[in-house]
Amino acid sequence: MRDVVIVGVGMTRFGKFLERSLPDLGREAIWKAVGDANIPPKDIQIAYVANSIGYQLTELKGTIGQHVLAAAGFFGIPIINVENACSSGSTALRSACLEVASGNFDVALALGVEKLFCDNTARSSEAMASGTPYAKFGFMFPALYSMNLKKWMEKYGITQRQFAKVAVKNSKNGALNPNAQFRKPLSIDDVLNSRVIAYPLTLYMCSTMGDGAAAAIVCTRDKARKYTTKPLVEVAACELVSGTVTIPNQPHEPLEARAARLAYQKAGVGPEDVDVAEVHDGMAPAELMLYEELGLCREGEGGRMIDEGLTEITGKIPVNPSGGLAAKGHPVGATGLAQIAEIVWQLRGEAGERQVNDPKVGLTENAGGWVIDDNAACAVTILKK
Amino acid sequence: MRDVVIVGVGMTRFGKFLERSLPDLGREAIWKAVGDANIPPKDIQIAYVANSIGYQLTELKGTIGQHVLAAAGFFGIPIINVENACSSGSTALRSACLEVASGNFDVALALGVEKLFCDNTARSSEAMASGTPYAKFGFMFPALYSMNLKKWMEKYGITQRQFAKVAVKNSKNGALNPNAQFRKPLSIDDVLNSRVIAYPLTLYMCSTMGDGAAAAIVCTRDKARKYTTKPLVEVAACELVSGTVTIPNQPHEPLEARAARLAYQKAGVGPEDVDVAEVHDGMAPAELMLYEELGLCREGEGGRMIDEGLTEITGKIPVNPSGGLAAKGHPVGATGLAQIAEIVWQLRGEAGERQVNDPKVGLTENAGGWVIDDNAACAVTILKK
Repeated sequence: MRDVVIVGVGMTRFGKFLERSLPDLGREAIWKAVGDANIPPKDIQIAYVANSIGYQLTELKGTIGQHVLAAAGFFGIPIINVENACSSGSTALRSACLEVASGNFDVALALGVEKLFCDNTARSSEAMASGTPYAKFGFMFPALYSMNLKKWMEKYGITQRQFAKVAVKNSKNGALNPNAQFRKPLSIDDVLNSRVIAYPLTLYMCSTMGDGAAAAIVCTRDKARKYTTKPLVEVAACELVSGTVTIPNQPHEPLEARAARLAYQKAGVGPEDVDVAEVHDGMAPAELMLYEELGLCREGEGGRMIDEGLTEITGKIPVNPSGGLAAKGHPVGATGLAQIAEIVWQLRGEAGERQVNDPKVGLTENAGGWVIDDNAACAVTILKK
Repeated sequence: MRDVVIVGVGMTRFGKFLERSLPDLGREAIWKAVGDANIPPKDIQIAYVANSIGYQLTELKGTIGQHVLAAAGFFGIPIINVENACSSGSTALRSACLEVASGNFDVALALGVEKLFCDNTARSSEAMASGTPYAKFGFMFPALYSMNLKKWMEKYGITQRQFAKVAVKNSKNGALNPNAQFRKPLSIDDVLNSRVIAYPLTLYMCSTMGDGAAAAIVCTRDKARKYTTKPLVEVAACELVSGTVTIPNQPHEPLEARAARLAYQKAGVGPEDVDVAEVHDGMAPAELMLYEELGLCREGEGGRMIDEGLTEITGKIPVNPSGGLAAKGHPVGATGLAQIAEIVWQLRGEAGERQVNDPKVGLTENAGGWVIDDNAACAVTILKK
């Protein structure tokens, strides 16, 4: 297999854009990535397009990628639409990388695009909830998290205040990110005093609906050098796992830990080598759990990580410098590729006010689906400068 | 890249199965393919799942593949959901083949599953139509076909009676296929006297709604030999193209002709080598056009092909021995893989009463989307014994 590098990334700002369509959002991200890569558009040979909820909430009921690519002025290349709930974006990246690594094509585009806001917010909420089979009983994502979190808090003495600190950190990072949906730094009191969604979760600990798109162009190292003089970012691993938390007849291993183990193995690095990470904080406490599942700290030490500021932009292992899902926004299919864009900018030293100190290795973790029903997916990607 | 062979295929009967769910249909196809391949289920390392309309018509709003694989008892392998309208099934096959060809995995599953009937047929029709942006003006697939067909009839002197002969041939083939949705042989009068949908199209020239699933398991030749003593069928090419009919600044070439050209080139064969074909006769006249676009005859000779019986099961180049979309049924996401299953059975000499005479090379053509709006896709696959 050949080395694959990311030669260009681009994203729209995330937010509520009632007047913008999926093709309009997708076009902006594609052309920003094309510009960033300095690549002749005709050199792009195949496109993978990630979207999850568009079929329910927009006028487009099929071949969404074809609609978006045509709007962006790309005609005739193979287009494959992929879906894996909240991990759709990194699923698209994984496939695009395989096209290049295998030698099937030299240059591939991965695009994630999503539009969750429509003129009827209740309809949007219903569409978002409809992926969860127990939603009709009121058992949605916050309820599931709540159950797990209470067990976890009890086991390791983790506090609601520590969860709030994650939201505070990420809001501060989001305030530095021009692409973030929410740019207001929150205090611990803001977070703890916001409306309780499902204890210990309060409103400001939860990611929200968003519209947006993000794209990455991947190619061989040789090709990339012809396009750009910017530092090249290698996709050292992009490992996808699916399904249940616990595989029958195998030791229990959370989906995220399994994906991370495979990715570290493939990339030939360990968690101690990670200099910056973007992780899937659909709910702020998930970030603390992920410190442990990704091996950034030992079991039960997630709370200490946030207390000691180790995951701040200025800390030892900055996590979610972009603001994460809660502050940057979470347009489902676009999220995985927005994480990739942030790590690419960080590795190149282009992250402006939120730049972490000279990172060499970055990681993204992008999870989706409803894990207790065996229909989840998780991808961990490791990028190297 | 490594050679990829199909080691097992399976499909449900196509039809109207109100009582069956997507996971139920998918499970049957998967386990039939597993049985056909004689493979230990745990050897399957990755799955691509094709579905197009499920998000609109079923309770499953995301990660459909995960739901289906869990129902079939497969846990923990990576699952990627793909969509490309009516060509979703062959898109899944293409991706599964790339996993194996590239060396990423040794054994991959491609599944297509669709459920179009629900308790409200009007809702099903609406969902089917909603992919076509002009449906609200009554301009749906039959209308688009009608416009093109009238021009074509005039140019080459093709008659409505010749179109009817395609439906007659395919109904006769479908009657021999235990998996077909419709098993009644039709006469020319039956077809010509059926209700006019959009001249020259009559009811029996049009494919209908259907429920069903089809699956293929692909692997390396060495692996396959360990599982089965059946003849191995090589995927010599599986080429996907997308988007517009005419690429800007390039000579006009129909999508299907482009996909076929790429596939012949990759497989190192020509149309003269094709012994049996399954093609996308969403409307019967399309089959005549495809004879020309796939190079099975020269331009303007499609009518002669059907008049002379050259594409009958007993003819020189049998086309749609399964009954095609109109007789076998057209559960959108499953169609491409049902075509593959038919060709595999034909190449192995297992097609029973509809067996063609000792074929060595088979072809499938699977198209989808709405070509005038640049959002189409087409895959041509060439299989060799």
